[in-house]
Amino acid sequence: MSTLIKNGRIITADEDYTADIFIENETISLIEKNLTIEADIIIDAKGKLVIPGGIDVHTHLDMPYRGITTSSDDFKSGTIAAAFGGTTTIIDFANQTKGKSLKEGLETWMKKADGKSVIDYSFHMAVTDLVENWQQEMRELANEGITSFKLFTAYPNDLMLDDGSIFKVMSESANLGTLILMHAENGPVIDLIIEQMLSEGKVEPKYHALSRPVAAEAEATYRAIAISEMAGTPLYIVHLTCDDALKKVAEARSKGLPVFAETCPQYLYLSIDDISKPGFEGAKFVFSPPVREKFHQEKLWAGLKSNDLQVAATDHCPFNFKGQKDLGKNDFTKIPNGGAGIENRLHLTFQGGVNEGRFSLNRWVDIISTTPAKLFGLYPQKGNISVGADADIVIWDPNTEHTISAETHHMNCDYSLYEGMKIKGNAETVLSRGEIIIAEDKFKGKTGRGNFVKRRMPVLG
Amino acid sequence: MSTLIKNGRIITADEDYTADIFIENETISLIEKNLTIEADIIIDAKGKLVIPGGIDVHTHLDMPYRGITTSSDDFKSGTIAAAFGGTTTIIDFANQTKGKSLKEGLETWMKKADGKSVIDYSFHMAVTDLVENWQQEMRELANEGITSFKLFTAYPNDLMLDDGSIFKVMSESANLGTLILMHAENGPVIDLIIEQMLSEGKVEPKYHALSRPVAAEAEATYRAIAISEMAGTPLYIVHLTCDDALKKVAEARSKGLPVFAETCPQYLYLSIDDISKPGFEGAKFVFSPPVREKFHQEKLWAGLKSNDLQVAATDHCPFNFKGQKDLGKNDFTKIPNGGAGIENRLHLTFQGGVNEGRFSLNRWVDIISTTPAKLFGLYPQKGNISVGADADIVIWDPNTEHTISAETHHMNCDYSLYEGMKIKGNAETVLSRGEIIIAEDKFKGKTGRGNFVKRRMPVLG
Amino acid sequence: MSTLIKNGRIITADEDYTADIFIENETISLIEKNLTIEADIIIDAKGKLVIPGGIDVHTHLDMPYRGITTSSDDFKSGTIAAAFGGTTTIIDFANQTKGKSLKEGLETWMKKADGKSVIDYSFHMAVTDLVENWQQEMRELANEGITSFKLFTAYPNDLMLDDGSIFKVMSESANLGTLILMHAENGPVIDLIIEQMLSEGKVEPKYHALSRPVAAEAEATYRAIAISEMAGTPLYIVHLTCDDALKKVAEARSKGLPVFAETCPQYLYLSIDDISKPGFEGAKFVFSPPVREKFHQEKLWAGLKSNDLQVAATDHCPFNFKGQKDLGKNDFTKIPNGGAGIENRLHLTFQGGVNEGRFSLNRWVDIISTTPAKLFGLYPQKGNISVGADADIVIWDPNTEHTISAETHHMNCDYSLYEGMKIKGNAETVLSRGEIIIAEDKFKGKTGRGNFVKRRMPVLG
Amino acid sequence: MSTLIKNGRIITADEDYTADIFIENETISLIEKNLTIEADIIIDAKGKLVIPGGIDVHTHLDMPYRGITTSSDDFKSGTIAAAFGGTTTIIDFANQTKGKSLKEGLETWMKKADGKSVIDYSFHMAVTDLVENWQQEMRELANEGITSFKLFTAYPNDLMLDDGSIFKVMSESANLGTLILMHAENGPVIDLIIEQMLSEGKVEPKYHALSRPVAAEAEATYRAIAISEMAGTPLYIVHLTCDDALKKVAEARSKGLPVFAETCPQYLYLSIDDISKPGFEGAKFVFSPPVREKFHQEKLWAGLKSNDLQVAATDHCPFNFKGQKDLGKNDFTKIPNGGAGIENRLHLTFQGGVNEGRFSLNRWVDIISTTPAKLFGLYPQKGNISVGADADIVIWDPNTEHTISAETHHMNCDYSLYEGMKIKGNAETVLSRGEIIIAEDKFKGKTGRGNFVKRRMPVLG
Repeated sequence: MSTLIKNGRIITADEDYTADIFIENETISLIEKNLTIEADIIIDAKGKLVIPGGIDVHTHLDMPYRGITTSSDDFKSGTIAAAFGGTTTIIDFANQTKGKSLKEGLETWMKKADGKSVIDYSFHMAVTDLVENWQQEMRELANEGITSFKLFTAYPNDLMLDDGSIFKVMSESANLGTLILMHAENGPVIDLIIEQMLSEGKVEPKYHALSRPVAAEAEATYRAIAISEMAGTPLYIVHLTCDDALKKVAEARSKGLPVFAETCPQYLYLSIDDISKPGFEGAKFVFSPPVREKFHQEKLWAGLKSNDLQVAATDHCPFNFKGQKDLGKNDFTKIPNGGAGIENRLHLTFQGGVNEGRFSLNRWVDIISTTPAKLFGLYPQKGNISVGADADIVIWDPNTEHTISAETHHMNCDYSLYEGMKIKGNAETVLSRGEIIIAEDKFKGKTGRGNFVKRRMPVLG
Repeated sequence: MSTLIKNGRIITADEDYTADIFIENETISLIEKNLTIEADIIIDAKGKLVIPGGIDVHTHLDMPYRGITTSSDDFKSGTIAAAFGGTTTIIDFANQTKGKSLKEGLETWMKKADGKSVIDYSFHMAVTDLVENWQQEMRELANEGITSFKLFTAYPNDLMLDDGSIFKVMSESANLGTLILMHAENGPVIDLIIEQMLSEGKVEPKYHALSRPVAAEAEATYRAIAISEMAGTPLYIVHLTCDDALKKVAEARSKGLPVFAETCPQYLYLSIDDISKPGFEGAKFVFSPPVREKFHQEKLWAGLKSNDLQVAATDHCPFNFKGQKDLGKNDFTKIPNGGAGIENRLHLTFQGGVNEGRFSLNRWVDIISTTPAKLFGLYPQKGNISVGADADIVIWDPNTEHTISAETHHMNCDYSLYEGMKIKGNAETVLSRGEIIIAEDKFKGKTGRGNFVKRRMPVLG
Repeated sequence: MSTLIKNGRIITADEDYTADIFIENETISLIEKNLTIEADIIIDAKGKLVIPGGIDVHTHLDMPYRGITTSSDDFKSGTIAAAFGGTTTIIDFANQTKGKSLKEGLETWMKKADGKSVIDYSFHMAVTDLVENWQQEMRELANEGITSFKLFTAYPNDLMLDDGSIFKVMSESANLGTLILMHAENGPVIDLIIEQMLSEGKVEPKYHALSRPVAAEAEATYRAIAISEMAGTPLYIVHLTCDDALKKVAEARSKGLPVFAETCPQYLYLSIDDISKPGFEGAKFVFSPPVREKFHQEKLWAGLKSNDLQVAATDHCPFNFKGQKDLGKNDFTKIPNGGAGIENRLHLTFQGGVNEGRFSLNRWVDIISTTPAKLFGLYPQKGNISVGADADIVIWDPNTEHTISAETHHMNCDYSLYEGMKIKGNAETVLSRGEIIIAEDKFKGKTGRGNFVKRRMPVLG
Repeated sequence: MSTLIKNGRIITADEDYTADIFIENETISLIEKNLTIEADIIIDAKGKLVIPGGIDVHTHLDMPYRGITTSSDDFKSGTIAAAFGGTTTIIDFANQTKGKSLKEGLETWMKKADGKSVIDYSFHMAVTDLVENWQQEMRELANEGITSFKLFTAYPNDLMLDDGSIFKVMSESANLGTLILMHAENGPVIDLIIEQMLSEGKVEPKYHALSRPVAAEAEATYRAIAISEMAGTPLYIVHLTCDDALKKVAEARSKGLPVFAETCPQYLYLSIDDISKPGFEGAKFVFSPPVREKFHQEKLWAGLKSNDLQVAATDHCPFNFKGQKDLGKNDFTKIPNGGAGIENRLHLTFQGGVNEGRFSLNRWVDIISTTPAKLFGLYPQKGNISVGADADIVIWDPNTEHTISAETHHMNCDYSLYEGMKIKGNAETVLSRGEIIIAEDKFKGKTGRGNFVKRRMPVLG
């Protein structure tokens, strides 16, 4: 089986040139100008961009929510939607159940994906309890390709580790050479603010945002940085939302510390104005950390340009407005936290980044594919277009226009965070390991064709 | 009883002029040039500086140390030494015992001082356990003049409060209008670093400093700032030691937050070189937070000048080298933490600040008396020279030279942190509420003459 | 002649207490509670604030503008308006004419004030040309009480000195112990931007603001700081407008450099929205540096609170809308630069600062009177309420409400920058050197009663 | 003609893998594992690193110095030394003579290189005078591949442009899409400090450093940034030396501005201690900007790691100690400014960066080759190892140890800045466009074989 992509403008994090790509089976085997070679399939990419497939390192598919409900995309619907949006690899989160082993958590999530995912996938391991043999387990997981561990300073009764435990896990990560991901919000303080608000009858969705101040995020971000510095491990802040936290990351990086951070399209486009919409409408925009005041958005865009932020991921965690979000009709703390975004990541960063002149095509590819691949041990197998790499390739039409809408999106969610937003640029054809899985606006692949990817150690640059 | 101080150069935080001061009983009643009035005592202060008595807001007299020993100065010896050094008011720390009421803690400390202190005094209340009625107790204490509460992010098994409890106490402080003092070091992480060091046989005194990195202090400083911002209370960081923490305070102040900080002479003059002295000598320099690398010193001096730091206090907590410090001969964690400084605060800040040209005479008075008085509710009764104020006055000879030494100091401690240091400038005559207590290098007062001062709410400027 | 002010709440930069003030002739001679003494005049200040008279260190009365026109207030109308607003001292600017001696410039301005000013006054000397004997002249001026010199990095063909000359004047200032004031904008770059705009037909008032970017101000601010650091002189940035420049000042101060800055009410209240008003209306808001985007306002307020900014002055330089501003009807560069503010400085800082909870009463007095007095060598004669000081006193009614309007203001200007703004708080009675000059909303003094004040060297704190 | 490099560990800015490289004529034509192909020359690179040839973007070969002397390496000796050190491309500086056209300047320098350079080369164009048609000339030069223009804020009587002219050139650069290089020191102030020092008899070499304070560099750096922001051009600060200037660059980058900076090995390794050596020895270390206090070095290393600094170049400008440096025996201002470094750039950054653990192999290649190639329009032709690129390749032995010494180096300079420094790692074989020019410690190429490279527009990432 061979495929030839002709005449495309190839964009990687570093390069911008026109050439032909020859794919044998799952792998890129030749890149040359004016290749004359026979191929089973020939794609003419003239006028199109040819980029490495997107890598979304922050998703929550089929995720149980407080024992009440489950995020509305499973590994089938979620990865199909991802593919439509030009993403060919995801890294989801496997959670440890308190008192249970890490591996048990991983196995649970492996089963969720197995036979369902249509693109390649891996998991970060969330460590929530230092059970017996946790160090041994971390080592074994790292050997099996789970080279990133997630911790929480939020959700005290559930997911949070105290500072001492965080230091212990970080120290072990330093030994192993793995990467620590941190959800950075000061959970105990937030919980008390929430308690106070509820006692005052403040139950509307907007109080979700008001109960989680930027100071709570900036504080926990800097705490994570300081503890990681003492432990000697690289650190990756997930879903950074605000200038206050961004400054802490930028300072750490200027000191030469191996600190990294992602932001997500919802923080680039949505604000406290959205969650404050009248009635229960605001519930659509309830996720954590919350939307912020508008002025933070331009700071985050600048961070993506300047490399103070390195990655755009989605934190995709959809819940339907009807039947799920409305669990919190009378109490914002009961609204399932999360939003749908896996399909629109490339759209939104291309529109705001490239079309609106905030950064270059190379930088766009860097934040949605190459740097995620490096930081999470997928590079150079994924995240670039080079001979020997997996043929995860997106043929991106930079000129086609479309409008984001729940009516047309492929995510299993009855509303869109970005309803009505006009986008120029779309994934026309998507290949995953050499196989065309999206073409002519249709999914062409088979359920379950995605592979678990054993990841290598992070490449920190 | 009346006293006339003639011809002195009066220095307050704002003013610098020559005039005569007439004192009736305990109070300043007139300030005029060339006063012609009868007085029981006449002091000629020509060629001398006349300043408000020093206020040391951070002392630990008669302080039990882990049930093993007690700081070597009690309220008699300690306050006599303070008076020799030009300090006429101290604020010591009353500690709550876990499980016991705040008031019980205060009473214990009131008894320690009662009948002993030779200068006026008050206490901060250290809150270490949110026992029943703690809010009610805080309110009552504030009404009784205890308008500052101290919290710890260090010493997890002993004094530390978790972030939630810190937020609760800070919120209550916001309600009351009181000030929160914070010992800012990340205790849980430090304890784990210590554990690791001991397991590697690192037991010498210098490991005390190496086990408490600047990142642990800067982190807790910023955490305290962020939580105080969310709670809405003013905050005062005690014994700040390093540029890293100083920057957090400066940033908060530039944002307009009511955040304040003190440093101490030991951080302005001593460094990791001292604690690294051969043999057990380094134990003399074991206190927490620890000495730092030398370059921090000039940053702290700049902070005192620029008002990023507002107060110089001592954290006076002496232990004898023989019989006390040597408890930790084979294990730095067993060395009683603390050093003697109550007598040398004015000496050292005058020498390094005024004599060496780092700041003005006015600024010197500000950091050792006026701002402490304002922040801790003693102003304008204390901390300035004005009609109606307590006649707590120091006649300071700016030209006399002396050498600091354990052989001549009045603190009950068998060594000096500053042994051999040459100082130009000394307290020649010291008045406390109109009474001469130091003159001709002798203590002239009576044991127990000091009063407990009921403090008002902080004046934050 | 004696006056007794009874029952007032006395507010200084440091104190807040109720007492009576006895004034003999021009001087405060007694301050006591419940004074029983005979007096020619008795004022009951019950329920009122008694504060030191305001000091406006940045005014341009009777100022020639490019040989075309003159600012519309002279030293009579301008100082009467100042007095109505609670200001009892001004420092105006005497300009050197290129090629002429400094003293000639000073004499010209001395004549403008002489026989006209109704309050005390002094001048800063603007140095625009290093003519023969300039150093000798600076020394003589300093001896005569002109202890502050103003330089420009803007207006290349007129007022600007090049960097070398700036360094020379700053070095001489360092020798003398005087203070350098700087108008900090990069003039050469601004002039080229203007040229470009005019060539593109951009002539409306708003282009005045757009042609003077914040980068041009921040750059010149930092340049002035760096050169002053190399020269060793204290520096005072006039009319700072934006966060970008404020950060440079804050950084310098945190390093311990003697750097100070003022902002003005127009930058706290007005923005690019005002200068962009339709038609020629925007011309009312043309002054330099220009109005900025709105978000800068809150940063400036925070700076006044945190002491990153030390002074609120006005840069009062009024031009009538009809007959003056309209000179630039078809070309924004021909609009006379300046606005009227001398009367509303205390109103606006009291409203936004005290009434709206941004800072304390003490801080208010500090920025409008005490710190100006210290920095410009008027303290303690002016800027405080103490025995021996000039009886420059304002009895401020904190509760009276009024609306700012050109119809009622006393400035000779046919419009108000703040038309319609509601203010709570006003100067009820104003004393200048013991004489009541404002009472019952009327001016009670004599033209020309104001004295030239020989200033001392700056007190930098 | 073909060459096969077998078994090498290929290191680019992004990748690290083992493969064989096949070179046909001047170009890389194949990269594969275990290539079986015939070749004229086969090099076994087992155990060696294979990296893209170094690119030194800051050299001054055959440079006239104030009409008195000339830098001691011409384009032959200098490029041979460069090649020995693993550098295969240089960009030197063509200077405009005041009053003469830019092109005339370029031609002069083209002739210096023509027939001499043994490696490829280009020139930046230094603009020192806005002669008639300067804009037209800039455009033509850009079209001819001179896509970077250098300006000076130093050397007022010689090379400096005033701020207005800088803005003009920057604006034109913005139109063209070229890059502005800036020598950032405040020349007018420095010249006055020098004048003062000479008048005080301070003539020893160390005064060279003391007369050029860090504030003068930080100021001009920020000024260049601010003007470039207003003009809209990308900016590259050459030879950045100190933390103060680095912070300005880092802040600009965090805002998202296209600002870049290089440092040089002399600032990473040498300090004020060197220039203060007794006698005239310090003259060896006279270059501008000068050496700084030691603590700056670690900040610069951190900058290279964090990407606050992007490039390591040399500012190679050698003068012999005997016969050249001694022109300034009695007056530091007469010492020819510059030092020899072109041969040791890779050695020193490999030693301090990679061997001492400060950054990765990838980062090393990035700062010495890839980023210079991108910023200066040489990428992807140079600066990486990919099919189609020039076969500029260094086979680097990471394990060989040697000692830097004037006795063994190939630069025409009678002393070494780094005499006696031990280095692990050396360029074993060097290929330039496919031709082996260094092997077995000998130069194997022909004089004049280097080509002028027509550069493309900068790629800013």
